[in-house]
Amino acid sequence: MDKNIEHKRHTLAHLLAKAVIDQYPHAKLTLGPAIEHGFYYDIDFSGGAAPGDEDLKHLQKQMKKLLNQWTDFTHREVPVTEALELYQDNPYKTELINEIAAKGEPITLYTAGTGTKAEFTALCRGGHSDNPAEEIAADSFKLDNIAGAYWRGDESNPMLTRIYGLAFDTKDELDTYCTQLEEAKKRDHRKLGKDLGLFSFSELVGPGLPLWSPAGTELRQRIDAFVQALRKEKGYTNVTIPHIAKKSLYETSGHWNKYSEDLFKVRAKEGDDHDEYVLKPMNCPHHTQIYDAAPRSYRDLPQRYAETTMVYRAEQSGELSGLTRVLSITQDDAHVFCREAQLQAEIEAIWDIVDTFYGAFGFELNVRLSFHDPEEPDKYLGDKAIWSETESLMRSIAEKRQAEYFIGIGEASFYAPKLDFMASDSIGRTHQVATIQLDRLMPERFDLSCVNEAGEHERIVMIHAAIAGSLERFIAVLIEHLGGHFPLWLAPEQVRVIAVADAHAAYGQSVVEKLQAVGLRATLDEANDSMGKKIRNVKQAKLPYFIVVGDKEVAEQTVTLEKRNGSSETVSLNEAANKLLAENDAKTL
Amino acid sequence: MDKNIEHKRHTLAHLLAKAVIDQYPHAKLTLGPAIEHGFYYDIDFSGGAAPGDEDLKHLQKQMKKLLNQWTDFTHREVPVTEALELYQDNPYKTELINEIAAKGEPITLYTAGTGTKAEFTALCRGGHSDNPAEEIAADSFKLDNIAGAYWRGDESNPMLTRIYGLAFDTKDELDTYCTQLEEAKKRDHRKLGKDLGLFSFSELVGPGLPLWSPAGTELRQRIDAFVQALRKEKGYTNVTIPHIAKKSLYETSGHWNKYSEDLFKVRAKEGDDHDEYVLKPMNCPHHTQIYDAAPRSYRDLPQRYAETTMVYRAEQSGELSGLTRVLSITQDDAHVFCREAQLQAEIEAIWDIVDTFYGAFGFELNVRLSFHDPEEPDKYLGDKAIWSETESLMRSIAEKRQAEYFIGIGEASFYAPKLDFMASDSIGRTHQVATIQLDRLMPERFDLSCVNEAGEHERIVMIHAAIAGSLERFIAVLIEHLGGHFPLWLAPEQVRVIAVADAHAAYGQSVVEKLQAVGLRATLDEANDSMGKKIRNVKQAKLPYFIVVGDKEVAEQTVTLEKRNGSSETVSLNEAANKLLAENDAKTL
Repeated sequence: MDKNIEHKRHTLAHLLAKAVIDQYPHAKLTLGPAIEHGFYYDIDFSGGAAPGDEDLKHLQKQMKKLLNQWTDFTHREVPVTEALELYQDNPYKTELINEIAAKGEPITLYTAGTGTKAEFTALCRGGHSDNPAEEIAADSFKLDNIAGAYWRGDESNPMLTRIYGLAFDTKDELDTYCTQLEEAKKRDHRKLGKDLGLFSFSELVGPGLPLWSPAGTELRQRIDAFVQALRKEKGYTNVTIPHIAKKSLYETSGHWNKYSEDLFKVRAKEGDDHDEYVLKPMNCPHHTQIYDAAPRSYRDLPQRYAETTMVYRAEQSGELSGLTRVLSITQDDAHVFCREAQLQAEIEAIWDIVDTFYGAFGFELNVRLSFHDPEEPDKYLGDKAIWSETESLMRSIAEKRQAEYFIGIGEASFYAPKLDFMASDSIGRTHQVATIQLDRLMPERFDLSCVNEAGEHERIVMIHAAIAGSLERFIAVLIEHLGGHFPLWLAPEQVRVIAVADAHAAYGQSVVEKLQAVGLRATLDEANDSMGKKIRNVKQAKLPYFIVVGDKEVAEQTVTLEKRNGSSETVSLNEAANKLLAENDAKTL
Repeated sequence: MDKNIEHKRHTLAHLLAKAVIDQYPHAKLTLGPAIEHGFYYDIDFSGGAAPGDEDLKHLQKQMKKLLNQWTDFTHREVPVTEALELYQDNPYKTELINEIAAKGEPITLYTAGTGTKAEFTALCRGGHSDNPAEEIAADSFKLDNIAGAYWRGDESNPMLTRIYGLAFDTKDELDTYCTQLEEAKKRDHRKLGKDLGLFSFSELVGPGLPLWSPAGTELRQRIDAFVQALRKEKGYTNVTIPHIAKKSLYETSGHWNKYSEDLFKVRAKEGDDHDEYVLKPMNCPHHTQIYDAAPRSYRDLPQRYAETTMVYRAEQSGELSGLTRVLSITQDDAHVFCREAQLQAEIEAIWDIVDTFYGAFGFELNVRLSFHDPEEPDKYLGDKAIWSETESLMRSIAEKRQAEYFIGIGEASFYAPKLDFMASDSIGRTHQVATIQLDRLMPERFDLSCVNEAGEHERIVMIHAAIAGSLERFIAVLIEHLGGHFPLWLAPEQVRVIAVADAHAAYGQSVVEKLQAVGLRATLDEANDSMGKKIRNVKQAKLPYFIVVGDKEVAEQTVTLEKRNGSSETVSLNEAANKLLAENDAKTL
């Protein structure tokens, strides 16, 4: 976060505290940091009345009044005793003061509005606006909502009241963000996923384990088929691995030591707590074993293995939410096993795929070149010369492609630099999506090599390159990006045929059959509903097209093709089919 | 096994024992039963010399000599003491005698060749030929091999020598079986799978967990795509489920209580032996939850969910072998959720798919109607009237289809009758393959219903119907059935292009590109090998076709298409492509 806005947000947290204390003198303040998009304050109201959502407006009004008088922000270091006395009734601040004292750090009190009715002093480390009244626009912030939070996030501590605020530099920025939030709420993939019947959760199966309906599976398959088709053009082949492996695979890869807590352990016998197997948290270790199953000549390289398969990571149930946090993650994974000299061509090929893929959905991409931090050399493995060589290779590829990029120092993994792609969605949010990651560590650990022109064993390099990444997360982002309005090529149901009356049903059925015969996903609405109800259902299902057949259409053997945007035309069945097929094949948005 | 051949095989086990004792007087006999295809005898040779494979011929010769004198087989009941005395030096027989005595059963000694040099008496329960010399043809049996076996199969007991023999009614039958064995050995899918580079195993991943190469995955995908295409015609849709579920899913389904030992238990935290999740051993419980995720009207039925996905069953490592016994099993699974009145149409649709699928590979099918055993009513759940109604429905479908069928009394599952399909392969072996299984239990346990015309909740029925069954097992059977000679449509590599000299390589490359462009899996052999070596490689890879391009072909812009059977023709590239495509699409064997 930019320092300037961070200071504003932190200042506003103090301002909120003052407004609260004025109105609820029994309130005990705890902590109030700046966060992304704003700030919050955790407060113990257990000694009396507590504010509800309906009180936020009033508190906000008070904050604005107080703000006028906050023309300063000063601080002074005080002895522990003074601080403890100031907070003698507040066990939270007392705890904090004792901790700071134990560390031998200075204790500082910060004061704003000195000498006015708005004067407010609080234990703090600093980081505020120097002149809040001048720097902070009164219409650039807003109290947002109230939630519960445990003191220091620990369930065994008392529950506090957390008041959230939003804050930006200007009213415009605040408004934009609020509109975005509102739009995101309407588009929430959890709600739309249910409304469109794409996926569900079952208590018996468990949270974080989505079950995909036929419609949801169609969507997954269209997305995956797109990725696989793009990969096939670049010479990728598919492989297949089981979902478990002996623990030894992950001991060799190093995952067991580093991520053991996040791994699902699998064992055959009940009551036996010996870890025999691990449910795979990623696919690379298995794929190395396919590479290593036969001797490889330099002529066989690159080997490009793609596989869309599920991986499993043990998240806390409390963290599971819709499709963005799940236990079973479907990755459209791929690994390239190649020589150093082949890196550039392989990276460019993957970048091509990423561009085409995200472009097809209307996402705008920019890319972070995630490089190592030269000031922390201990954090990285491997030869310095190879690091700088690879990093300049990446930068030259980015330059050559005239890509929008920036450099993220210290964002590399500990074994190699990465290319991280960021997608902007239709409501202005940014999501980290695909990654192209070099890997010189895994080939070392699994001793992967090829026999080169000189007949020697040559160490190879790996590239990890998922395109959609996690299909679950991608679909969550996609649903919200499109508001559930999937383009024709993606829509699980592409066109619904509605017969005006029973007399037209047979013709309607023949229309459906013709469309299905050319490969379109068409259905006939056979429900006993009114015409109006049927059309409302089409809208609710957010279908790209529907077709109405009545007297005129039957007589003239035509169909009336109605588009989601409201336009319609009456054409021959052949024309309609060709039009839809062309749009489908072009992957028009 | 037929009683007659069982008695012959058992008699031959005695004959083997006599031949052994004559030559190895220190040998201690243990048990020698009749088995499928022959017999064996487990013998303790630890007191002296033991026969090796090279001694089997001689033992066999001796058996034939002795057989002439075995014109009788008599028995008498003896007191325990007499039996114990006879076997005073044999702890195995002593153990058996004491066990029989403890159960209060009679102890019998069987003697053949009475009064001749071939006379032989052994502790036995009986079941022999009355006149072996006359009944058993001397050329209808053969000693086969020697293996190790623990006394009573228990690893903590002494290791015995097991001598195997083959035995049939006639020499012809024996010869046929030996040819089959030899052929099966040549076609062993473990060997061919490795030679053709289809799959491999890794020590780090673990036994029973196959890793599928690009070639093997192509084969899997072709087979699965065939099943899915057949299913699509019948209105099936795909669904997607995670590979784990909370234990509660399997408690509800009943699998936890019945098969807990065979389930892989999954837990998140190390050292925590609480079973949080189960790695799915089958897909039906998950699929019920997709059915149950929304209210279903009778108009929505049948719901037909297909999914090709892996299930996991905890087999002992010792039992794992090639693809026939694996821990990770890929099922091309499907479940139909329908009303009673829809059963016939749904069963027939599945049967159509089974017929088309197995027919395409040249398997001959017959079907077992697996019915309940009316003499054991306690073994089955549900209403008697429904059982007999369903069984007569199945029988009438079989009659209507003029299928080759037989009835297996007592072969039903405990909750419904089944249709079990048996496929005969090209070397005369029979494999149980697809199953169509009704299920009224799971809908009961998961309370699955639809709202019927009267607005009431109506209990539905499920049908389980995998087609290939386990892809691993099916591919093992298929490799051996075809001897690795996959038809064009299945071959991972369909056609390899060989340039006679470097000068023809560019043209060869253009041929490959043209073939790939129309969707054929073509490659150019770019190795630095001689023409002869390249052609030998094609044969070894058992490719359906290869194409040679030399001076003539370049000059005339043709290709010489060489078929696996040795025939060849020189045609235009277009003609070649069309010919191959037609064969591919027709799924010609």
